[in-house]
Amino acid sequence: MIPAFTRRRFLNLVGAAGGSAAVYQMAMGLGLVPVVARADRPDLAPLRANQRRTVVILGAGISGLTSAYELGRKGYQVIILEASHRAGGRNLTLRHGDLIDEIGNPRRCEFDPDPDLYFNAGPARIPGHHTALLGYCRELGVALEPFINDNRDAWVHDQALFGGRRVRNRDYITDTRGFIAELAAKSIKPQDLEAPLTRADYEQVLAYLRQLGDLDQNFKYRGSLRAGMAVHDPSAPDVLKQPLDIHELLQSKFMNLMSFGEMDDQAAMMMQPVGGMDQVPAGFLRKVGHNLRLHAQVEAVQLRERGVRIVYHMNGTRSVIDADYCLNCIPMHLMSGIEHNFPADYAAGLSAVPRGRLFKIGFQMKERFWEREHIYGGISWTTQDIQQIWYPPHGIHRQKGVMLGAYTFGEATGEMFARLTHPQRLQLAIQQAEKLHPGYGSYVENGVSIPWVRMNNMLGCAAAWSVELRNQWYRLLQAPTGNHYIIGDQMSYLPGWQEGAMYSAFHALADIDLRERQTAPSAAA
Amino acid sequence: MIPAFTRRRFLNLVGAAGGSAAVYQMAMGLGLVPVVARADRPDLAPLRANQRRTVVILGAGISGLTSAYELGRKGYQVIILEASHRAGGRNLTLRHGDLIDEIGNPRRCEFDPDPDLYFNAGPARIPGHHTALLGYCRELGVALEPFINDNRDAWVHDQALFGGRRVRNRDYITDTRGFIAELAAKSIKPQDLEAPLTRADYEQVLAYLRQLGDLDQNFKYRGSLRAGMAVHDPSAPDVLKQPLDIHELLQSKFMNLMSFGEMDDQAAMMMQPVGGMDQVPAGFLRKVGHNLRLHAQVEAVQLRERGVRIVYHMNGTRSVIDADYCLNCIPMHLMSGIEHNFPADYAAGLSAVPRGRLFKIGFQMKERFWEREHIYGGISWTTQDIQQIWYPPHGIHRQKGVMLGAYTFGEATGEMFARLTHPQRLQLAIQQAEKLHPGYGSYVENGVSIPWVRMNNMLGCAAAWSVELRNQWYRLLQAPTGNHYIIGDQMSYLPGWQEGAMYSAFHALADIDLRERQTAPSAAA
Repeated sequence: MIPAFTRRRFLNLVGAAGGSAAVYQMAMGLGLVPVVARADRPDLAPLRANQRRTVVILGAGISGLTSAYELGRKGYQVIILEASHRAGGRNLTLRHGDLIDEIGNPRRCEFDPDPDLYFNAGPARIPGHHTALLGYCRELGVALEPFINDNRDAWVHDQALFGGRRVRNRDYITDTRGFIAELAAKSIKPQDLEAPLTRADYEQVLAYLRQLGDLDQNFKYRGSLRAGMAVHDPSAPDVLKQPLDIHELLQSKFMNLMSFGEMDDQAAMMMQPVGGMDQVPAGFLRKVGHNLRLHAQVEAVQLRERGVRIVYHMNGTRSVIDADYCLNCIPMHLMSGIEHNFPADYAAGLSAVPRGRLFKIGFQMKERFWEREHIYGGISWTTQDIQQIWYPPHGIHRQKGVMLGAYTFGEATGEMFARLTHPQRLQLAIQQAEKLHPGYGSYVENGVSIPWVRMNNMLGCAAAWSVELRNQWYRLLQAPTGNHYIIGDQMSYLPGWQEGAMYSAFHALADIDLRERQTAPSAAA
Repeated sequence: MIPAFTRRRFLNLVGAAGGSAAVYQMAMGLGLVPVVARADRPDLAPLRANQRRTVVILGAGISGLTSAYELGRKGYQVIILEASHRAGGRNLTLRHGDLIDEIGNPRRCEFDPDPDLYFNAGPARIPGHHTALLGYCRELGVALEPFINDNRDAWVHDQALFGGRRVRNRDYITDTRGFIAELAAKSIKPQDLEAPLTRADYEQVLAYLRQLGDLDQNFKYRGSLRAGMAVHDPSAPDVLKQPLDIHELLQSKFMNLMSFGEMDDQAAMMMQPVGGMDQVPAGFLRKVGHNLRLHAQVEAVQLRERGVRIVYHMNGTRSVIDADYCLNCIPMHLMSGIEHNFPADYAAGLSAVPRGRLFKIGFQMKERFWEREHIYGGISWTTQDIQQIWYPPHGIHRQKGVMLGAYTFGEATGEMFARLTHPQRLQLAIQQAEKLHPGYGSYVENGVSIPWVRMNNMLGCAAAWSVELRNQWYRLLQAPTGNHYIIGDQMSYLPGWQEGAMYSAFHALADIDLRERQTAPSAAA
């Protein structure tokens, strides 16, 4: 199995006898509770006329920009210190001329200067229930369009199957399901259903299996039009394909990819910002860009009796800011290189959580050859190192396109790619993609490679929390130490998602707001 | 069960011992045959310098426009006679001010004048393997964007379940699958697998069922994150919902909707033209619009020894054209009102095939309220008469939107809606939609209703071929009688799809081309 499909989340089950909470959750499932009850974006109390509060935000990632926007519009003075040349953090969209700031190996993106030719090297898709992010898109004028994960016309390439030949996703899924549904229909007996289920329920189970596998009236799988037709000629009768060999299909290492499009954060309908994911930070910067200091290297974070002192270095000058609060979205493991006076356990926690080694390649293709294979978006899968190939759902039928040529989430594979030179990475990705698209290399004009573990100011991708690490460190790190808060997707149960970053900010902001409200003079004073 | 989900297609199975054809089809399934081999768009021989061929096309539907374009660019003289005020046939996109030409009840569309506010009253989506249509989109500059069928955040409303309360599609699908997968895992025994399947295959079957249902390590279904979380707060641990009651779920009339997004012509990735489906006829008209005569009522079609004579009426004048060929996409059942000298069996066939009674409503909504329920596209389902509600995947986060408020494919329901007045239709659709979206009616600004069975020059939707009717009439009607050809989606195995219309044209054009090549003087002459 591919490791990333494993549900690593801690499953917090609601018991059947869970009382009112369970009833509440059931009601949510049935849509009886207004949606707004789930949105946790805080409504901060505005500062009073003579009140001054300074907040320093370390890092212009999504959580930092969210915080700056929320605080700024309520009267807080905000300074964002960003070490790199740009805002956005891992929200990185590459276009013509952009710097790829890999340590020891900085490069420029060589895509043509064309608004359609961009590559989302970090987050690339948004599910419909990421209400915080979508709310900001709406508020900040970030236009959205559909994004496609699941495409039944894309390819599945399993080195263990069919002598390594590619098959269409729709064949792979349809034929496996057909076989399994037939087997289940044959095996399940009425007595397998426990009371209060009845014989009528058994008939419904059979009806369900028939639709699941597209079985015939005798519950046999004989191929299905869902796999597409052997010949595309609608002027003539349909011709079914011969089903793939089930014995081969059962060898597949890819079982779980059949559920990828079912996952809570990946199921259709997904979206992307028109023109690149960095339209999100661009939207925030229209509001808070005047508070942003780029190339600002933090040297020290000192908790003080009231507030936090920040020492940073910018344009050859060392500066000090005494702030009331500090919101810190610097990747936690990089705090060991910054002087601080945090409590020992807090400091230990910052170093405890490893980071992902995600690796991506984007290729500019001189022709959208995949559209000739009737693929217009979505993902092809392979058991090779590159793992995935994505096709852009925008710019359909234009001449050129930028596609994702590798999306590596395995730790060893990410490390392997990171250690190659940039040309070697592209070469390996092309060589492997040829198995899915013969002639692939002939379309490549140029490419970008992003090994997050070697990107400057990052040295890693999302925080890789385990259940044990969560239990040991999460609450400790999520709580403020003095007036210092850790934020970022690292401080959420959705690492790697902008929604997680935003909620980490909401959590810290709500805490600051509470403290401010508690210390405010009462209205009667 | 909802009738339209039933596979009505004639299943033409390839036997396991099918010889070279089966091998070829197997190879297609594995993607070893170039895609171009499946495209049947004919490459007509251009006419010679002194050669004159006149083709009259009856009806400016998609098959007629396709024919006109292909013939025109090879030197044929083309005249398109269209009875109505517009080209496109059932490809009908309604915008501000457009005429809805219902017999006895003509109306104007009252949507705001805004390019985003349109309603596709006929075809509305294109699958990636409809290569003919997509090829023309590319060639004619019709821009495309993704269209969404499946949205796990949309609603399922089954009057027989949960006291008629709506549930999210993701709960409905996830919880049913979980239960069925658990039951199958419990019931299937190693001995149920027949040789050459092995004990190892059995273990793989279990692994498959685990991913299918998101079962735990003991193959129990205990709820799944695929159903979404009970509370959306990524700063805190995930909280699963309580699974829905399986006994209720098994009462569902909707079993088959779980496979809707699996169907060959409905599976993701689907597309739509940017700005409305009528961008397709608009693209053709840029090439052949000068050959189009609107308000041209055909009065007679006479087969002659060489060619076809057409008598038609336009602007108070009766005209006669003697053409070499006639391509006829008038709905077959309307030919009984036109004088002709067809053979008796051919004439009988034209009247033999009934038409669908599809009915649609589009509503202009003053707010995109569905986006607040985190629905951004796709389809909600109900067992009520309106059957479906669609949310536009374009114009996300704008103020207003046009949504589909009813899509009725049942015969009796289509007839019922057709017999209501326009205001009554809207009222009924609003009343039913309130079950899915409380407050729905308060957002309605205006609406359009399209009962295809009463639309002028149509009197019905797609041809409703049964297997028996196919066997009796299809080949007879598909072949020319004299120099007269029936075309249109009605003359295909994909009625209701533009791809079917185009292939009907391809079939007729290839036949004309063959006749022309055979009668041409040889190159040596």
